[in-house]
Amino acid sequence: MDDVLEPAAEDLQLPRILAALADPHRLAAVRYVARNGESWCTQVMQEAGLAMTKSTFSHHLRILREAGVLTKRIQGTKGYTSLRKDDLDSRFPGLMDAIIEADADLASGASASPR
Amino acid sequence: MDDVLEPAAEDLQLPRILAALADPHRLAAVRYVARNGESWCTQVMQEAGLAMTKSTFSHHLRILREAGVLTKRIQGTKGYTSLRKDDLDSRFPGLMDAIIEADADLASGASASPR
Repeated sequence: MDDVLEPAAEDLQLPRILAALADPHRLAAVRYVARNGESWCTQVMQEAGLAMTKSTFSHHLRILREAGVLTKRIQGTKGYTSLRKDDLDSRFPGLMDAIIEADADLASGASASPR
Repeated sequence: MDDVLEPAAEDLQLPRILAALADPHRLAAVRYVARNGESWCTQVMQEAGLAMTKSTFSHHLRILREAGVLTKRIQGTKGYTSLRKDDLDSRFPGLMDAIIEADADLASGASASPR
């Protein structure tokens, strides 16, 4: 495993979740995982159009995990991440759906919304 | 008027809105205005339980206005603020309702959720 602390469902905090999502790259990663289900982390970075180093992506992933938006599972030598949709939906009904669907036509990748 | 630039409805940006809302005091102010309609700025600060100086509150209000969450109207010597609900709802359906209603039982004021 690693040293990232993922909060329990009852400890999710709205300001922290909003801060984690307030970045176009992290939004793109979350949308990718929301649409594709649990995904290999490297694949998320590549297919969500996130042009960055692996260590920068790890940093973004850490922020999303520490806020309780994403979780990570290790299998063999690979890390897989998924959205904590049930935990988020039960604490903040409608929030993730609204965020995932917002600007869905514009947001095929972070590179599509640079402004 | 003042020097704060409020974006047009078509220029609202989700990451900026989420960043503006990612603060317990700003969330409390937005919830107060969402529930009470257009309000005198000083009243929002006092009644939303925001224990801060007027200049700190002005700073928070500026961030919310520059993100397009709140708008401000001057009448006489007083400033009144209101939620740009129609603009927000048409660009990001369901988002503001989900945020306003989240933890509604806990969030009677920012001071009620200090953690």
